Amino acid sequence: AAYLDNFEPHEQDLVFQALPAERRPQVLAAMRYEVAAELINRRAPEEAAGLLEDLQEDDAADILGRVDEAKLREILAHYDVEDAHALEELLAYGERTAGGIMSPDVFSIHHDVTIAEATRMVQTADDLPQHVHYLYVVDEHDRLVGVIGLRQLVRSKPDMPIHAVMTTELVSVTAETDQEKVAELASRYDLVAIPVVDDQRRLLGVVTIDDILDVVREEATEDILKMAGAGQMLVDTRSFAASFRARMPWLLAAAAGGLLVAASLQGFEGALQAVPALALFMPVVAGMGGNVGTQSSTIVVRGLAVGYVETNRLGRLVLREVALGASLGALYGAGIAVAAPFLGATSSDPIHLGAVITLGMMGSMMIAAAVGTSVPLLMNRLNIDPAVATGPFVTTSVDILGLLFYFWLATVLLGISG
Amino acid sequence: AAYLDNFEPHEQDLVFQALPAERRPQVLAAMRYEVAAELINRRAPEEAAGLLEDLQEDDAADILGRVDEAKLREILAHYDVEDAHALEELLAYGERTAGGIMSPDVFSIHHDVTIAEATRMVQTADDLPQHVHYLYVVDEHDRLVGVIGLRQLVRSKPDMPIHAVMTTELVSVTAETDQEKVAELASRYDLVAIPVVDDQRRLLGVVTIDDILDVVREEATEDILKMAGAGQMLVDTRSFAASFRARMPWLLAAAAGGLLVAASLQGFEGALQAVPALALFMPVVAGMGGNVGTQSSTIVVRGLAVGYVETNRLGRLVLREVALGASLGALYGAGIAVAAPFLGATSSDPIHLGAVITLGMMGSMMIAAAVGTSVPLLMNRLNIDPAVATGPFVTTSVDILGLLFYFWLATVLLGISG
Ligand SMILES: [Mg+2]
Ligand SMILES: [Mg+2]
Ligand SMILES: [Mg+2]
Ligand SMILES: [Mg+2]
Ligand SMILES: [Mg+2]
Ligand SMILES: [Mg+2]
Ligand SMILES: [Mg+2]
Ligand SMILES: [Mg+2]
Ligand SMILES: [Mg+2]
Ligand SMILES: [Mg+2]
Ligand SMILES: [Mg+2]
Ligand SMILES: [Mg+2]
Ligand SMILES: [Mg+2]
Repeated sequence: AAYLDNFEPHEQDLVFQALPAERRPQVLAAMRYEVAAELINRRAPEEAAGLLEDLQEDDAADILGRVDEAKLREILAHYDVEDAHALEELLAYGERTAGGIMSPDVFSIHHDVTIAEATRMVQTADDLPQHVHYLYVVDEHDRLVGVIGLRQLVRSKPDMPIHAVMTTELVSVTAETDQEKVAELASRYDLVAIPVVDDQRRLLGVVTIDDILDVVREEATEDILKMAGAGQMLVDTRSFAASFRARMPWLLAAAAGGLLVAASLQGFEGALQAVPALALFMPVVAGMGGNVGTQSSTIVVRGLAVGYVETNRLGRLVLREVALGASLGALYGAGIAVAAPFLGATSSDPIHLGAVITLGMMGSMMIAAAVGTSVPLLMNRLNIDPAVATGPFVTTSVDILGLLFYFWLATVLLGISG
Repeated sequence: AAYLDNFEPHEQDLVFQALPAERRPQVLAAMRYEVAAELINRRAPEEAAGLLEDLQEDDAADILGRVDEAKLREILAHYDVEDAHALEELLAYGERTAGGIMSPDVFSIHHDVTIAEATRMVQTADDLPQHVHYLYVVDEHDRLVGVIGLRQLVRSKPDMPIHAVMTTELVSVTAETDQEKVAELASRYDLVAIPVVDDQRRLLGVVTIDDILDVVREEATEDILKMAGAGQMLVDTRSFAASFRARMPWLLAAAAGGLLVAASLQGFEGALQAVPALALFMPVVAGMGGNVGTQSSTIVVRGLAVGYVETNRLGRLVLREVALGASLGALYGAGIAVAAPFLGATSSDPIHLGAVITLGMMGSMMIAAAVGTSVPLLMNRLNIDPAVATGPFVTTSVDILGLLFYFWLATVLLGISG
């Protein structure tokens, strides 16, 4: 099913048409939402409605949210009024919130009911959701007051009232809760479903673990692509123009930074003319800095995402990374300085050139560690997503600051003027 | 609970001691395995055994697998023989396999039993695992033949035999199956548990969704850190020496690459002396290439991980990325070439210098896209993890190849000798 995603549209249609009718909704559900939406776009509204009605409502909403507006109206016209209304409500929630991933299809039970009655309701309900693991318990005002697992239901005395058996310490979220937060709760408390309530604690729906698993993958992908400045979605197996647009803006910063480097180094043209060997080590000074900066920023961005970075220890974290940059820079800088003369790097003053390379690399790598650590921490503090384009930002600032330091060192240690 | 992870060891001990005894196992289970293992290391063997006995066996094994060998022996001596044996078996499985994350505590039922009998067994079993959602059905040779959910159990006719009601199309794995594969299956088929069987299809244990959720996070973290050459674990909130060791090797390639750049550019010292302005644009040529290469490689590495990259379309993917590199390079290269004279970049031949910058950036970005796309694809083909140090590798090779191309262009277009 999932492999249909990477087929050409006409191939998808062919395969889809060739499937037995009862398999189609299943295959549709396993496709990526964007791809499924395009496939739905290509169907007649009536056929589309028939397919989507067989999906779980949250999945149908995820696909419909990506279908053309006009087509969406036509498709909903083929639904019965109540279902269309429920879908429209789901579509109104933010895409990355609990409301956006919940299923409104939730089985609840009154708290005064006995275990035996509840069991009978589970046995006879014809609207019982496919993957039900918990029953949610509500009071006379329809407010969520507890939860009971099927395991517990089966094992409890039949004549006990539900409220005497249910768990009242329960985790719930509101429709506006960020999906990342929902995933974090499911992971921390090892839950297979989390109920969604309104401000009166009335049940709105339930987020199930299958969708939470998708959230975790999706958020990781988003963060990885963001860090590389590669856009927010894996648009890159799609159109060329979309890829171009997604990636162009992140390069703008690097290009502007590049101009800034050129402008700042311009003052050192004299030094370059006096010791052209300086240019040979520019890539390694900038590159090693860029690598260390990327290591630092990656550790911080991912550490913030999975909760390994404790926000009350930031100073220590930055200092540690800078100390790592200094030690790694001393190690590699000295190594490269020693190798330099053997490369045929001509200089009238090889000892001082070696010192410029070693200290230049140390400085560049310390700057890189400081920038790589503190920029994402600062963004996090300002409530900006620390993953956004960390990569280009860190490498570009290291190019500027690291190389300026390197050339400044050269003018001082080699006694040449800039 | 999870926030204990980032406390100092003595603070962890204090908080832990202050907790009511019945809460301690719960808090231990929510800690990172490495941190929990260190905490266990600091307890008396008897106390440690008491704490671990209250955890799920798979979690206890994950912690014990990180405890000192001698301590491990002492702790197991306080277990009863049978449990100690079960734990040792779990510890023997590869850490990142289904065996390494499964719980051996699996509830199974004979296929000839009726629904009523099965229900009674669920009601009376005193070893029923806490989070049971499915019952696994075995034949007379103990071979896994089907599965039935608790929902289905409750809703089936009491006098039916299990084998008439159970699902026989079931997903299972072996103990050696990679944990990433297990997660992929759970995600594709929306399962909350996957049974683990031996080569005779006998039940060995079950992997539950809470552990699968951890796997997805862990693998994403691993891939992100690997791509940045930052080691495999978030060791960086731990010891300085461990961080140094984790990060040093990935910089080696960059340092060696840096020496290679210096050596290759050494042939162009003459050109640099003739037109020192060439040096000013080295960072932007290398940097823009590095950024595009990182974008390409990130898209490919993540695309391979989540299945968006279809392995029968590789040629097209590479070509597309190279075309993107060319267009983005033409756009930004021309922009920078136009801005160059305003920076005061002195040249006797500004038109040709502009051409060198524009074409140099295009070339560097095309090379970057080609390397960034094809290297991870090639590694994947050779069954090497494409995430390994993609970042340092791509940026370093772009530094070398991109800058060589740029200087070669300069000697040709500016009519200077290298
Ligand atoms: Mg949705
Ligand atoms: Mg968990
Ligand atoms: Mg769902
Ligand atoms: Mg779903
Ligand atoms: Mg998000
Ligand atoms: Mg995020
Ligand atoms: Mg670079
Ligand atoms: Mg394990
Ligand atoms: Mg799924
Ligand atoms: Mg478990
Ligand atoms: Mg676990
Ligand atoms: Mg792995
Ligand atoms: Mg992996």
